[in-house]
Amino acid sequence: MPPAKKSPAPAAPARPNSARRSEASRRAILTAAFELAGELGYAKLSIEAIAARAGVGKQTIYRWWPTKGAVLFDAFLMLSEGPDGDAELPDTGDIEADLKTVLRATVEELADPRIAEPMRALSTEIAHDPQLAALYAERLDEPVRELKRARLRKAQQAGQLAADLDLDVAVDAIWGPLLNRWLLRTGPVTTAYTDAVVETALRGLRAS
Amino acid sequence: MPPAKKSPAPAAPARPNSARRSEASRRAILTAAFELAGELGYAKLSIEAIAARAGVGKQTIYRWWPTKGAVLFDAFLMLSEGPDGDAELPDTGDIEADLKTVLRATVEELADPRIAEPMRALSTEIAHDPQLAALYAERLDEPVRELKRARLRKAQQAGQLAADLDLDVAVDAIWGPLLNRWLLRTGPVTTAYTDAVVETALRGLRAS
Repeated sequence: MPPAKKSPAPAAPARPNSARRSEASRRAILTAAFELAGELGYAKLSIEAIAARAGVGKQTIYRWWPTKGAVLFDAFLMLSEGPDGDAELPDTGDIEADLKTVLRATVEELADPRIAEPMRALSTEIAHDPQLAALYAERLDEPVRELKRARLRKAQQAGQLAADLDLDVAVDAIWGPLLNRWLLRTGPVTTAYTDAVVETALRGLRAS
Repeated sequence: MPPAKKSPAPAAPARPNSARRSEASRRAILTAAFELAGELGYAKLSIEAIAARAGVGKQTIYRWWPTKGAVLFDAFLMLSEGPDGDAELPDTGDIEADLKTVLRATVEELADPRIAEPMRALSTEIAHDPQLAALYAERLDEPVRELKRARLRKAQQAGQLAADLDLDVAVDAIWGPLLNRWLLRTGPVTTAYTDAVVETALRGLRAS
């Protein structure tokens, strides 16, 4: 995305726009948290490091977030609400090809430590923090899950998937094996694997 | 299991059996680590607490294990090598019923914090530690995975599952959704859910 044009300088000195400054600080903090989680890993991530990278004081961060886990969660939320946040899943009419495309893209993302490390950090925070998990389920997992269900629902309406399919079970059948293998590192995360998972899952999900 | 019979006292004072004492300390430490991980959660688990519960000095633990994660890993290993360690999966001839039985038992275990909390702790350590993950894959995951593959192979040989099935993909299709939902808390972990997962997966895995 090209950088936005700068606004022309105001004709007369204006009072500082503190709401806009706050928003700029908030975004700088969240961007720093995401980047540092990728560079350092979650264990070494600290409020101090985030503050230094974002160019704000530690107290600014503590005023808005109680823990580094909470900062990272909001960083994911900011990213998920970005320009691609409400993207639909691809729909070429071929559900198998479309799911393979989506899972291949995920395999690529997971191979990039700048994305994978913050995701590992968030995943393990969620595993140990039921309150964060409830927030995650509602605000991050559910919107993405609805996009997945919507694509499967279309395939169902086209007669490509069984009419009595539980769409949540179907989503888990397609995405669960990959995420579990990646997080617990029980096998290689490759596009050959995700292609096989999609083919196997679809054999079970198809209209018979 | 009934406790093993005590050996009769030796006729003459023997030299202390240091190998046996070491083994007793090792088991006390591993048992304490597992129990405390369940009671306190991994974040609050400490070498100090394990030493106190096991009745040994901290240095005894540090002599054998570098970190609390390493202790907990060996605790899981000890349990997996126990009397039930090499148990086969049930085989009534009905693969669907047998898989439902196994997954229902897992749902019950996961509802017990004395088991679930140490499992969460181990899972998140693995997520962040590639070396521990490699040990886990080889020494804990692989032996259990082989039991699962063996049961699926029998069903395959009986013509109940597709002959060209990739058994690792099949194992992930059956166990991956449950483990991922449980660890990331994205939905309720119930036997109704695991029954639906088994039914859906088997529709994809069956011989056509």
